[in-house]
Amino acid sequence: MKAFMDENFLLQSETAKQLFKAAEKMPIIDYHCHLSPREIAENIQFRNIGHLMLGGDHYKWRQMRTFGIDEKYICGDGSDWEKFLAYAKMMPGAIGNPLYHWTHLELRRVFGITEILSEKTAAVIWEKANALLATEEYRAKGLISRFNVEVLCTTDDPVDSLEYHGAIAEDTDFKTRVLPTFRPDKAMNAERAGFREYIERLSEVSGVEINNTGDVIEALTLRAEYFHACGARISDHGLDTVPHARFDRAAANRALADGLNGNPVSPDDLDSYRTLIMVALGKVYHRLGWVQQYHLGVLRNNNARMFSKFGPDIGFDSVGDAPFAHDLSRILDAQDRDNSLPKTILYSLNGCANSVIATMAGNFQGGGIPGKIQFGSGWWFCDTKPGMIDQMTALSNLGLLSQFVGMLTDSRSFVSYPRHEYFRRILCNLIGEWVENGEYPADMEYLTAMVKDICYNNAKRYFAL
Amino acid sequence: MKAFMDENFLLQSETAKQLFKAAEKMPIIDYHCHLSPREIAENIQFRNIGHLMLGGDHYKWRQMRTFGIDEKYICGDGSDWEKFLAYAKMMPGAIGNPLYHWTHLELRRVFGITEILSEKTAAVIWEKANALLATEEYRAKGLISRFNVEVLCTTDDPVDSLEYHGAIAEDTDFKTRVLPTFRPDKAMNAERAGFREYIERLSEVSGVEINNTGDVIEALTLRAEYFHACGARISDHGLDTVPHARFDRAAANRALADGLNGNPVSPDDLDSYRTLIMVALGKVYHRLGWVQQYHLGVLRNNNARMFSKFGPDIGFDSVGDAPFAHDLSRILDAQDRDNSLPKTILYSLNGCANSVIATMAGNFQGGGIPGKIQFGSGWWFCDTKPGMIDQMTALSNLGLLSQFVGMLTDSRSFVSYPRHEYFRRILCNLIGEWVENGEYPADMEYLTAMVKDICYNNAKRYFAL
Amino acid sequence: MKAFMDENFLLQSETAKQLFKAAEKMPIIDYHCHLSPREIAENIQFRNIGHLMLGGDHYKWRQMRTFGIDEKYICGDGSDWEKFLAYAKMMPGAIGNPLYHWTHLELRRVFGITEILSEKTAAVIWEKANALLATEEYRAKGLISRFNVEVLCTTDDPVDSLEYHGAIAEDTDFKTRVLPTFRPDKAMNAERAGFREYIERLSEVSGVEINNTGDVIEALTLRAEYFHACGARISDHGLDTVPHARFDRAAANRALADGLNGNPVSPDDLDSYRTLIMVALGKVYHRLGWVQQYHLGVLRNNNARMFSKFGPDIGFDSVGDAPFAHDLSRILDAQDRDNSLPKTILYSLNGCANSVIATMAGNFQGGGIPGKIQFGSGWWFCDTKPGMIDQMTALSNLGLLSQFVGMLTDSRSFVSYPRHEYFRRILCNLIGEWVENGEYPADMEYLTAMVKDICYNNAKRYFAL
Repeated sequence: MKAFMDENFLLQSETAKQLFKAAEKMPIIDYHCHLSPREIAENIQFRNIGHLMLGGDHYKWRQMRTFGIDEKYICGDGSDWEKFLAYAKMMPGAIGNPLYHWTHLELRRVFGITEILSEKTAAVIWEKANALLATEEYRAKGLISRFNVEVLCTTDDPVDSLEYHGAIAEDTDFKTRVLPTFRPDKAMNAERAGFREYIERLSEVSGVEINNTGDVIEALTLRAEYFHACGARISDHGLDTVPHARFDRAAANRALADGLNGNPVSPDDLDSYRTLIMVALGKVYHRLGWVQQYHLGVLRNNNARMFSKFGPDIGFDSVGDAPFAHDLSRILDAQDRDNSLPKTILYSLNGCANSVIATMAGNFQGGGIPGKIQFGSGWWFCDTKPGMIDQMTALSNLGLLSQFVGMLTDSRSFVSYPRHEYFRRILCNLIGEWVENGEYPADMEYLTAMVKDICYNNAKRYFAL
Repeated sequence: MKAFMDENFLLQSETAKQLFKAAEKMPIIDYHCHLSPREIAENIQFRNIGHLMLGGDHYKWRQMRTFGIDEKYICGDGSDWEKFLAYAKMMPGAIGNPLYHWTHLELRRVFGITEILSEKTAAVIWEKANALLATEEYRAKGLISRFNVEVLCTTDDPVDSLEYHGAIAEDTDFKTRVLPTFRPDKAMNAERAGFREYIERLSEVSGVEINNTGDVIEALTLRAEYFHACGARISDHGLDTVPHARFDRAAANRALADGLNGNPVSPDDLDSYRTLIMVALGKVYHRLGWVQQYHLGVLRNNNARMFSKFGPDIGFDSVGDAPFAHDLSRILDAQDRDNSLPKTILYSLNGCANSVIATMAGNFQGGGIPGKIQFGSGWWFCDTKPGMIDQMTALSNLGLLSQFVGMLTDSRSFVSYPRHEYFRRILCNLIGEWVENGEYPADMEYLTAMVKDICYNNAKRYFAL
Repeated sequence: MKAFMDENFLLQSETAKQLFKAAEKMPIIDYHCHLSPREIAENIQFRNIGHLMLGGDHYKWRQMRTFGIDEKYICGDGSDWEKFLAYAKMMPGAIGNPLYHWTHLELRRVFGITEILSEKTAAVIWEKANALLATEEYRAKGLISRFNVEVLCTTDDPVDSLEYHGAIAEDTDFKTRVLPTFRPDKAMNAERAGFREYIERLSEVSGVEINNTGDVIEALTLRAEYFHACGARISDHGLDTVPHARFDRAAANRALADGLNGNPVSPDDLDSYRTLIMVALGKVYHRLGWVQQYHLGVLRNNNARMFSKFGPDIGFDSVGDAPFAHDLSRILDAQDRDNSLPKTILYSLNGCANSVIATMAGNFQGGGIPGKIQFGSGWWFCDTKPGMIDQMTALSNLGLLSQFVGMLTDSRSFVSYPRHEYFRRILCNLIGEWVENGEYPADMEYLTAMVKDICYNNAKRYFAL
């Protein structure tokens, strides 16, 4: 029996152990996350480990609810200690859940704490961790630096001034580059509350008077160029559903007008509006040399009662099952027709779409760009040990694992960087297994280089960072 | 090489073996099955092992057809011996099929027969088993008692008098509690033949004159209360498709009227009718403290020729693939809005919906009830070794395995209880694997308690039995 | 650590090794491929290994594009050597991809070359292989004979004269039987360009004047009978989408008329047209004692830019995700109603439909025909090690692996026969694992016979060859 989470955690062969020695030394490029640029710029200090570990982390809140903990100790007005203790009580029951591994990796790598978290150990861990959090090195920037993060890309709205990114760049003592990412979802969701106000704000910051879909595109283009000047090289689209690839400009303008006037927007019109903007932005990204990310298949805010209390992103989202292959193909093809499809990463929340996504990527590879279309790393509900194995198995069988740009955190937490270590261990173990079983030659020179590529070099090249 | 089906069957590590020692001793709560209350009340005797093993078991019939056996020896007029012999001939070819394991567990645990079933051994097994079946202990109640079944929940129609449940309760020598389950499918399928007659019967037994959807709900509510008085704590809905969450009362009434008058029912109207009844019943169940079960995604009675000969439930059903996440979310949310969503178990026939179901459950957890929304055990075509591993892998990664209410038989057979043993072995082996690989600490005290919870205590608490 | 691709490649237990000894000796029945009957008849000689290995093989072209190779060296005007060298450069990066195994099995089994292909070894391998390809035994027929191929079924259009099949049959020195397969897709796609010309040609070769759907069916029936006389026993349908099982003859005739007149064909009309032809042809196949194949779920020609340059089948197809269970059930049932459903093989490109397909097969088994409805072998993007394991796991759990007709190449390459070896190794290893784990008795006599059945005897019987 292997000891819990020892130095060879998840590494089941000598080949895997040897590969991980190379992998673990590589810097981190966290090319997609949801950290707050303001909190980085202000180099915030955490009140305690409850604040640090549980603040904003809906992954943890969900399982606390499932365990039967009262909402008071989740999103309610319980104290940080009460919430941390409640989380500690739940912890043993999270067997087989990534939270169990993430939490214990965080305790070990951030604080050097090797105790197993439970109701019994909560108080000791609370004291130990809080003492460290009171020190200068455990402020926001120190936590990032501790993990050798070379680049970190936040997720930002086109109307954002990016002032905090500027402030961070001015701190020459802080070595991590913090870059903005362009996420124009709000400009595309013409059917949602607040659309009119959003478009007014977009008009204001861009200086473009917005009367039709072309104006929206022009305004977003100007903002993308501003983002580019501020260091952005990546965009991100949350495609909870993929629009049905309609290309009717009159319908798109109708959707825009209805959205601005607060009228109901017809789904068909909205499809055209969203399609046209996506395709137009794709061409802008291509011109700027950017990578676009499509995040597919989320069913959001399913619980109206909790939404009315606490708003979005609190743990009431789930995996969607609407088919999208045909529409996604049409939208990517529309960008590709005049050879202006940018580098693109496709992420699916539903692991059952792995082969759809992996082979869709193959439809648009080419132009001499290695791994131009990427099947993105296991995301959110797929960001688990089996989810990552499934993603890499599909990727290697249907594409080229060797060209993979690897892991990202997609996290709102300042201590989520051990997830890169978790990924690297799983990657090295998978390759090790193939070699041990005689399914690939034991060419350690090539394999070591490939593992380093997947952990770091591929992303560095792909995102042109 | 391990011997076939020895004492450590499916247990590949010491940890697994140790955990199973605790698991195997726990009583069984079979909270969902299709046994006949009449046959239990009458304590029927089986003519022979053919009658016992093959009677009503469409799982077996399907594979006999696939093997090329003539229908005469399946649902036709062949003798019990001819049918048993035909099944025995097929058996070796069922390698990798759960029938192979189920059948041999049944022979061992019910009869103490360790011979491998085949054409050669059929006669010997036939004699041995039949001698036992002629004895008093091998009548229906004896078979149930042999497996330490504490509670057994049958599946019953709202119009049922539940007289047999009463009769069973009166037999104080029989220790198993046999409780009814409320399954109102026939009241919801307004488009099907026989609907008018069914509603007339419902009206009669409930004393409610039925003119609109509200009357149907009132009648069903009265019957649920009657079931409650007779010990029911669980309902069950067969949602071959999930209605499209329309909430139009006028449309619902139109569907009812059309159904009663034998007119075609428009699919949109039917959606409203089914939606409104489901949501209303959810509130009733919540008030009564019940658990509701949703069984999702069956494509039934695909073979019209065989249906016309033999009717339903004879082995011509299969796995559906219609998306349902959005509609299911809307229907659960409608119940949750005023905080009257009952405890709910979601089962999917399509293993590809595992992550949809497991995360859908997460959308409606809360209220301080541990595991309030359950991702149900591998069901029917997922009730296989890989199906159970997939279900528990999804559940543990996306929810909390520790809160799982575990296994049920969902069976029409009096000898299906070894399936609980089969489940427990697979569960213990999965956990054992994690511990052996260093993915969870070897905290045997906690793990033993957790395994006992999943096998028995969680269900006892959850169903308030 | 096992050496790469040694004699026990993919065989992880003694049982597996022993079973493979029996499996590897069985002849090959390659009941579905895309080899050119003309090239066989002309017994073509290959210019070099580049021509042999890369000509027509879009599996390889896709990964070359993904690797970042310029199109010049893929489908462009680069020389054979340049293309082979480019492929060799990519090879190490194809870790985990079936191409890695296929390519090295081909080098070993066809040429006896054990070097690992890479940029470094490309020149040596090029020389060695080309020397052999210059010899008489390495012409088309010699390559086929080398693999003990007893029967080989090409894929042919109903309007084809089958002259090359006749020519091949006349060569009595060539022992492999090369039979045509009837693939009437072009007659069914009334909405596509070229339909009118196709129907004119069909009318001409069949001698049937075509004015309505019944005429199309009559013409196809005559051609099927001609194919039968030429040795055909199998048909094949590429169902990129399954029609929505509409049975309206007037609508079908409208679709035909619109297609012939070059008018847009309404999707509803087309559904009826395709449905009626499929159902009618099923009855013809049944009468002739044929097997029909349905290939489900391809999204074809996704890249318009590349399609306009190079046409179809060049590596721009992917996995579809449209639900089809209900419609497929209706279409099979329509054939089954008067008991004239032929033997049928269902293949899915989306592994997520495995349980849908495997249980759909169960809906129409019967009539005393072993394995009448087959869940087809892992196909195209599922023709991978995990894809085959998934297919056989689903098949064994939901049907009978023992009745499986096994592997086919579905290939356009003259050196793809090692894929049968690859399949046989994976099959034997899967069974070996069950035996080693005590999940099936070590009855080597039965298991050896079963493995031989799956590799050869079942197909020989099923296709009546």
